[in-house]
Amino acid sequence: MKTVKIAVIGASGYTGLELLRLLISHPHTELSCVTSRQNAGRRIGDLFPRFNGAPAADLKFIAPEPEAIVATGAEVAFLALPHGVAAGYASSLLTKGLRVIDLSADFRLDDAEVYKEFYDSEHPAPELLKEAVYGLPEIHRADVIGARLIAAPGCYPTSISLPLIPLLREKLIATDSLVTCSMSGVSGAGRTADLSLIFCETNESARAYGVPKHRHLSEIEQELSKAAGEKVLLSFTPHLIPVHNGICTTTSAKLTGSPEQVNSALEKAYANEYFVRLLGKGGCADTKNVTGTNFIDIGWSYDERTGRILLLSAEDNLGKGAASQAIQNLNIICGFCETAGLKNF
Amino acid sequence: MKTVKIAVIGASGYTGLELLRLLISHPHTELSCVTSRQNAGRRIGDLFPRFNGAPAADLKFIAPEPEAIVATGAEVAFLALPHGVAAGYASSLLTKGLRVIDLSADFRLDDAEVYKEFYDSEHPAPELLKEAVYGLPEIHRADVIGARLIAAPGCYPTSISLPLIPLLREKLIATDSLVTCSMSGVSGAGRTADLSLIFCETNESARAYGVPKHRHLSEIEQELSKAAGEKVLLSFTPHLIPVHNGICTTTSAKLTGSPEQVNSALEKAYANEYFVRLLGKGGCADTKNVTGTNFIDIGWSYDERTGRILLLSAEDNLGKGAASQAIQNLNIICGFCETAGLKNF
Amino acid sequence: MKTVKIAVIGASGYTGLELLRLLISHPHTELSCVTSRQNAGRRIGDLFPRFNGAPAADLKFIAPEPEAIVATGAEVAFLALPHGVAAGYASSLLTKGLRVIDLSADFRLDDAEVYKEFYDSEHPAPELLKEAVYGLPEIHRADVIGARLIAAPGCYPTSISLPLIPLLREKLIATDSLVTCSMSGVSGAGRTADLSLIFCETNESARAYGVPKHRHLSEIEQELSKAAGEKVLLSFTPHLIPVHNGICTTTSAKLTGSPEQVNSALEKAYANEYFVRLLGKGGCADTKNVTGTNFIDIGWSYDERTGRILLLSAEDNLGKGAASQAIQNLNIICGFCETAGLKNF
Amino acid sequence: MKTVKIAVIGASGYTGLELLRLLISHPHTELSCVTSRQNAGRRIGDLFPRFNGAPAADLKFIAPEPEAIVATGAEVAFLALPHGVAAGYASSLLTKGLRVIDLSADFRLDDAEVYKEFYDSEHPAPELLKEAVYGLPEIHRADVIGARLIAAPGCYPTSISLPLIPLLREKLIATDSLVTCSMSGVSGAGRTADLSLIFCETNESARAYGVPKHRHLSEIEQELSKAAGEKVLLSFTPHLIPVHNGICTTTSAKLTGSPEQVNSALEKAYANEYFVRLLGKGGCADTKNVTGTNFIDIGWSYDERTGRILLLSAEDNLGKGAASQAIQNLNIICGFCETAGLKNF
Repeated sequence: MKTVKIAVIGASGYTGLELLRLLISHPHTELSCVTSRQNAGRRIGDLFPRFNGAPAADLKFIAPEPEAIVATGAEVAFLALPHGVAAGYASSLLTKGLRVIDLSADFRLDDAEVYKEFYDSEHPAPELLKEAVYGLPEIHRADVIGARLIAAPGCYPTSISLPLIPLLREKLIATDSLVTCSMSGVSGAGRTADLSLIFCETNESARAYGVPKHRHLSEIEQELSKAAGEKVLLSFTPHLIPVHNGICTTTSAKLTGSPEQVNSALEKAYANEYFVRLLGKGGCADTKNVTGTNFIDIGWSYDERTGRILLLSAEDNLGKGAASQAIQNLNIICGFCETAGLKNF
Repeated sequence: MKTVKIAVIGASGYTGLELLRLLISHPHTELSCVTSRQNAGRRIGDLFPRFNGAPAADLKFIAPEPEAIVATGAEVAFLALPHGVAAGYASSLLTKGLRVIDLSADFRLDDAEVYKEFYDSEHPAPELLKEAVYGLPEIHRADVIGARLIAAPGCYPTSISLPLIPLLREKLIATDSLVTCSMSGVSGAGRTADLSLIFCETNESARAYGVPKHRHLSEIEQELSKAAGEKVLLSFTPHLIPVHNGICTTTSAKLTGSPEQVNSALEKAYANEYFVRLLGKGGCADTKNVTGTNFIDIGWSYDERTGRILLLSAEDNLGKGAASQAIQNLNIICGFCETAGLKNF
Repeated sequence: MKTVKIAVIGASGYTGLELLRLLISHPHTELSCVTSRQNAGRRIGDLFPRFNGAPAADLKFIAPEPEAIVATGAEVAFLALPHGVAAGYASSLLTKGLRVIDLSADFRLDDAEVYKEFYDSEHPAPELLKEAVYGLPEIHRADVIGARLIAAPGCYPTSISLPLIPLLREKLIATDSLVTCSMSGVSGAGRTADLSLIFCETNESARAYGVPKHRHLSEIEQELSKAAGEKVLLSFTPHLIPVHNGICTTTSAKLTGSPEQVNSALEKAYANEYFVRLLGKGGCADTKNVTGTNFIDIGWSYDERTGRILLLSAEDNLGKGAASQAIQNLNIICGFCETAGLKNF
Repeated sequence: MKTVKIAVIGASGYTGLELLRLLISHPHTELSCVTSRQNAGRRIGDLFPRFNGAPAADLKFIAPEPEAIVATGAEVAFLALPHGVAAGYASSLLTKGLRVIDLSADFRLDDAEVYKEFYDSEHPAPELLKEAVYGLPEIHRADVIGARLIAAPGCYPTSISLPLIPLLREKLIATDSLVTCSMSGVSGAGRTADLSLIFCETNESARAYGVPKHRHLSEIEQELSKAAGEKVLLSFTPHLIPVHNGICTTTSAKLTGSPEQVNSALEKAYANEYFVRLLGKGGCADTKNVTGTNFIDIGWSYDERTGRILLLSAEDNLGKGAASQAIQNLNIICGFCETAGLKNF
């Protein structure tokens, strides 16, 4: 099979690190370019000693100049950049004929107004919003197939939307009753020298943050509303806990259907989806079973006392919540087997 | 001030360990007796080397025989025993004139039927239920003062009830809308040789458990219902996370009053309570600020989009959730300053 | 390339888990048999949910009966069994024509008397000691190639011997001056329900154990002595630290040669060894760069004040210290590329 | 008893935090001044929410101006400042009549030349070196009593020197054979926004650093040499491990005396020392037993095979290794009971 040349733009953070880790072992890709303004000139293996021994470890970071990126022969670019910055690169690289998989928030929303509301600035490339496809393959695979520009979903959104969408589609839960708590590993806060992230501040600590209006709500509610066919709002509280990676999400919703219908809806949606592992009734998803993988585990429970359904999911925030899901999208747009390079355990 | 002689019955678990740690530094108590069937004959300092250097470290565990306990001159007994077992000791020791502070679930419920429903067995001493006082001093201080038998509240219940009770009393939230997620440190699962608790199974792991009907719901709903003046049910999901101690609790509820009323209700209830630290609007309670203490930190946030209030609390599951709260009750029944021995930071 | 059928005997511990994880992705093996007396009848995926999605997850554990193992068509057996127990299985399976890679200590020593001294019992199969090959490929590759019975080295021995052997061979250090400290992750203590291993006993804890005569000394000193051509003794102190996996080893020795010779000796020994990554002078090996891999990282430093050389190594105790090194041996005896299935990062 | 007014200069790091924690509960001190250039104007409780509820939490940080410090009435100043910076404050404050307990390295060395060798700059106040007393009370108590200027020992030096000094005094070990490995919690690296200290870089990591000539060697060797009556050099390797606080130290040395003499020497030196807990032969010190306290636990083991003695110690790097030992010195110079404020467990 043909090999596709890949550029990773902004490769010095944890998402970039995980993209590199997976691309190194991917059977159908060749890493042609990695960028990092701060680390330009350094070998990948110097910044990430873990990778020494892989041929790609000798590739050097370059500054993120579109011309230089194109010159490496890259055919697909992953953007692991801050929101606001990613959009400009997407425009440039699309113009030059690359396909783009953006891991920032810049192309996840259909509506530039919602972007402005949640991200406090004008959308930097609203003309591309219509074209961008929200890269949740289990939900939007048909649209992903031919896409030039993929918006890889956020970590919390993936963990929340995948369990809920089948139930909303089948009208099994009351849309005004959704309450979600998520717990994220510290890698979700980025690879950055921030006092609040040092070991002694995060270890032996658990706390909510970003309440009540986390930016991810915008894309979560967009996707839930599409599934429900009506406007859905969510009460969402993210928490930071002392694990490296992993998101554990618990959603509670008033059940309007039956528990059996819940199970059927999940089975119908995901029985044939390789990366969604249904744990069934009583299954309590554990992040330790999904770290380093592209799996999301989903269990559920019914509380007859309150008439509420509990949806319990676990994913790797850097995996199905970011890098490996981005590669799942790559596989689709390139015509590879969707699981190529992602069957690690 | 007179010194009170204390027995700790079942002192070899983490709650016992924390009781001992606090009693060692308590200015008005003398430890006269510690029991542990398994460790009878061993010094406290042998089982818990941390305590060597304290005079109490030389005290030896004895088998938990009521006569032997009484013979040590103990005036107050803390029971750190499994539910079902504690009740028998409480009966015996009360008969012999001791006051009893029970940290098990045996006397937390008013109704033996509810006990049977949640604990799957007949209540072992239903005749004592009427007398027992639920030892949440901020709520039931007047009843605690003269009590012979205190039921120290559970860890989750303390972290959930204290934020909610003022709002329920003032009718500020919809009683059918309560959804709570809690995250607990591993010490909450006990000091026991269980494969699921070893480091490699719990570290780098986050997961829900005990859904949908955790036993603690019985006492939580009892207390919430009393505060609300009507039957209140709760959707509650506990999670296990890799910290030693600490509970982080997030409750979401539909607000029927105003955000200002929420703040007023909390201030009214707790402005003068030393052990409740109100963080105000936007405050995100962090377990690392309360470990080893008797404090509970409470913040809140209002989500105008969903009309929901978020209550965010943090306590030490072994502290305000167990041992230090038990000592707060001791201080009250003995007429000590309520903060005696509890002003550690 | 032909596929080899593999049996993993004693597959329910952490070494077994890591063997399974690697075998699942190995291009030239087929898992035909996994045994666990305690878990017989259960699917691999039931015991280790992480593996669900891999075809092997549906394989069921069987009781470890040699006939049943042979009946699965297994050609090579990995023994992840306690010392003393492994030898019997090795004998049986060799007799039936399988090749055996034993991860226990049973065949690591040349001398049954030394075994008795360190393991407190008669060697269970002394007649096999002569045939068994110590499976440290970088040192004994020529012997491994045709071996029927491989003794996979212990975790500490690998991390200690690989840095030292080149220096001892070249007579660059004083053989009576060796002092080693190692720090191991908790997985090294096994997947067992032991109170001393639960999270709250191991987290936030660092301590030496097993001093002064850890059993691994027997094989370490055997290998060091062979390299030195004289009897070498080692002062060795292992420590338990709160990480899942990884061994960090620091050895101090009086330098009799020059620092340049140290570097040359290491380069000569390992420049062409894929799994040994030399960090050079000043390189401080970090376990986080090798977890999940078969790499050992080795750095060194020279202290001119004391005339001592410091050797600093990091490996994964379950990887190069156990499972992945066992598979490296498998690759050699089966004629596969030595890195087959081991190029994960 | 009279209360002494205390200033903590540089109170925003982990050493400052621990000093504040202990001073808050100290029976004979009053906190009159805390400084932090960066946090001037903020309440202690704003920077360290843990302390809210303590009266001292309302004290505001001021900029570290000597006049302003003196104006608060402070009688003793703790300096928790970087080396090089501390000396100037010590000079100023001594001149103004305060006594000074410096936790930096500025006054630990007798010889300004050694300072220059290890700290790469001229000593900022060499005229004070003669007066300064090295505040290891178990060794230098007589000198501490009347001191105006105390140099509180470093964390590694305390953990290494206390076990070794009695053996060196009694000439029981070969002075050219000392090899030490220490493992430190991450708090030892400071409360600073450094990428290498964030959770995801330190968790699940163990590595040596600062080899082969860590700055602390200067004071360690000075104290060991004094005890031995001859020049002693040490091979010392510190390691960073993922715990919050705690240092575990293992020293190996050739025994020239007998194991019984080792025990006698330790007993003779420390049997009456409250803060040194001797674990005896075979005792493996565990950091989890000393965190938050001023204890150092010391065990030992004799390896007859190599003729080496192993000394195993555990302390809290922020406790006996810094803040609580500084307060032990305070107690001595102020004539308080030496354990005042330090009997927490």
